[in-house]
Amino acid sequence: MDTCNKVSKYLMKAGYACNVIGVPKTIDNDLYGTDHCPGYGSAAKYVATTLMELNLDAKVYDKGQVAVVEIMGRNAGWLTAAAALANYKGLGADLIYLPEVPFSVEKFLSDVKRVMDNNGGKCIACVSEGIRDKDGVFIVESLSSAKAKDNFGHTQLGGLAIQLADLINRTYGVKVRGIEFSLMQRCGAHLASGTDIEEAFNAGRKAVQAACAGKTDKMVVFERDMSSGKYKCKYKLISVELAANTEKKVPLEWITPDGTGLTQDYIDYALPLIQGSSKSPLEDGLPKFASLKKVKVEKK
Amino acid sequence: MDTCNKVSKYLMKAGYACNVIGVPKTIDNDLYGTDHCPGYGSAAKYVATTLMELNLDAKVYDKGQVAVVEIMGRNAGWLTAAAALANYKGLGADLIYLPEVPFSVEKFLSDVKRVMDNNGGKCIACVSEGIRDKDGVFIVESLSSAKAKDNFGHTQLGGLAIQLADLINRTYGVKVRGIEFSLMQRCGAHLASGTDIEEAFNAGRKAVQAACAGKTDKMVVFERDMSSGKYKCKYKLISVELAANTEKKVPLEWITPDGTGLTQDYIDYALPLIQGSSKSPLEDGLPKFASLKKVKVEKK
Repeated sequence: MDTCNKVSKYLMKAGYACNVIGVPKTIDNDLYGTDHCPGYGSAAKYVATTLMELNLDAKVYDKGQVAVVEIMGRNAGWLTAAAALANYKGLGADLIYLPEVPFSVEKFLSDVKRVMDNNGGKCIACVSEGIRDKDGVFIVESLSSAKAKDNFGHTQLGGLAIQLADLINRTYGVKVRGIEFSLMQRCGAHLASGTDIEEAFNAGRKAVQAACAGKTDKMVVFERDMSSGKYKCKYKLISVELAANTEKKVPLEWITPDGTGLTQDYIDYALPLIQGSSKSPLEDGLPKFASLKKVKVEKK
Repeated sequence: MDTCNKVSKYLMKAGYACNVIGVPKTIDNDLYGTDHCPGYGSAAKYVATTLMELNLDAKVYDKGQVAVVEIMGRNAGWLTAAAALANYKGLGADLIYLPEVPFSVEKFLSDVKRVMDNNGGKCIACVSEGIRDKDGVFIVESLSSAKAKDNFGHTQLGGLAIQLADLINRTYGVKVRGIEFSLMQRCGAHLASGTDIEEAFNAGRKAVQAACAGKTDKMVVFERDMSSGKYKCKYKLISVELAANTEKKVPLEWITPDGTGLTQDYIDYALPLIQGSSKSPLEDGLPKFASLKKVKVEKK
C-alpha cells in the first residue's frame, strides 16, 4: 500500500491519467483501515485446522511430549492468534505467544513446566516468529547469539521453534519437537476459506469498478456489518495514504492477562472469516490450478 | 505386526482361545505382503498436494531461491516418492532422494547447482529423512557431527532439511529454505484420500469377520486387481509371520537411473491410492472429529 500510495501520488503530480486503487491482501492481516485482509481467513483456517490435527497426534501417546509450533507474523500476531480457534474447538494449544506482548524466556519455561505438570508431561506451545523481549530484541536472535557465543562464533542453525524446543529439552530433559508451519500456512490453497475467496473476489471487482468510474488514490477496505445479528462484509474506499505504513496489531485487550491466550473477542472476530470451503477443482485427486495462457489475438 | 505375531504365537502356545488378526496401517507403506497399507494414500495425497502448493509459492518470485523439503521415511522412501505425483501434475520437485539409493553429498550439491543454473536459480529438492551414505551412515548424523567437530563438540540443532539448506547456502551463497512436513504429513486428516478411508474401513471389517469366523494368526492384506483395466482392491489374509520384520522398500527399478526421480511405474502404482476426498464433517468451519464417549449401561 505504501508503493501504491507513491505510484498514485507520482501519477497525479505528473498529470498522467491513470487511476490507482489499492486492493488489500496479506495473510498477516496487519493493514490499517480495514476490518481484515483477503488471505487472512484462509491462512487462519489452515493454522486452526492443522493445530487441531497436531493436537490429536501429539496427545494420543501415553508418554508426555512437548511441541513448539512456530507461526508466521513478524510484528503482528494475527496468524498465531488463529491457534485460539483450535482451542475454541477443544483441540488447540496450551500456550499462545504473540509479538504484541514482550516475551520472557524465563516465564515461557515456567509456563511450559506448569502445563506439563498438569497434563501428564504434555504441552503444545504456539509462538509468533516475531516474539521479542522487553527491549525489542527478537527471541530467535538472542537465543542464536547466546549459543553462538558458546560455540566460538559459529551461528546456530534453526528457526525459533527449534531453538525453543532445544531450550526446553536442555532445561527439563523432556522430548520436544519444534514444528514450523513454514510456507505451507500461506500457500495451503486446498484449505482456503470460502468466505475469504468470495471477499477477495469482491475486493478486486470493487477496485476495478472504482478505477473505471474515475476514482484514484484509494484503497478498498472491508467493513464488518453486524446490524442484522449476522456477519456481513461491506466494501468501501478510503484514502490509500491512510493504509500506507501503519501496522494494525492484535488489540492488547484481546490477549488474556497472563499473555498466553486470546479472549472470546478474538474468536468472535475471526470465526466468520474461516467459514466455507474452497470449491477448487481436483484432477487425478490433486489440485487443478488455474493458469493464464497466452492467446493470439487476430487482427481484423 | 511383529508384536501381533508374538501375541498370536503365545496365545496359541498357551492354548488360550483368542483369535488374533493383524490390521495393517502405516503411512510408511513398508509392510511386506500387501500391495499398500492403509494410511499411505492419505499421507501421499498430503505430500503431493502440499508440494504443488509450495512449488507455486517458491516459483512465483523473479529472484531464485532453493527449498529443501524433508519428508518422513526412515528406511523406505514411499512417502518421499509421493513428491513424484506433484511432478506428474507439472508442479513438483526438481530432485527427489530416497533412502533406497546411497546419498552422496557431493552429487547432491552438483545436482542442485545444475538445476539452479537451468532454472533461474530456482530449485526444489525433496529428501527422505532416512537418506544414508554408501556406508549406511545417516546423512543428518554425518552433517551434524561434521559441524559439531567444528563447534568444539556442541551438537548442531535442526533436522536434515535445515542441515542441507545450510550446506547449500554455505556452498553457493544463495537463499535456501529448509522445510519439514513434520507431523502434519501424518495427521492431515482434512486431506485424506477417499480411497484410503474406504479401504481402511474394509480392512478393519475383514479382520473382525475373520476373527469371528475362528481364524487367527493372520494379517489382512490388500491385493491390487487390474483385471478389469481399472484399479480394484481385494482383501485377503496371509500368515502374520510373513509380514513381521520384513520391510518393503521402493523397487529400485522405479527410481530413475540418476537417483533423483521416480518412473511412470510409481505414478501408476500410487495414483489410484490418492483418489477421492475425505467427507469428514465440519463445524464452525473446522474439522469435527468423532470421539468415543463412555456410556452407562443399565443392568436389567
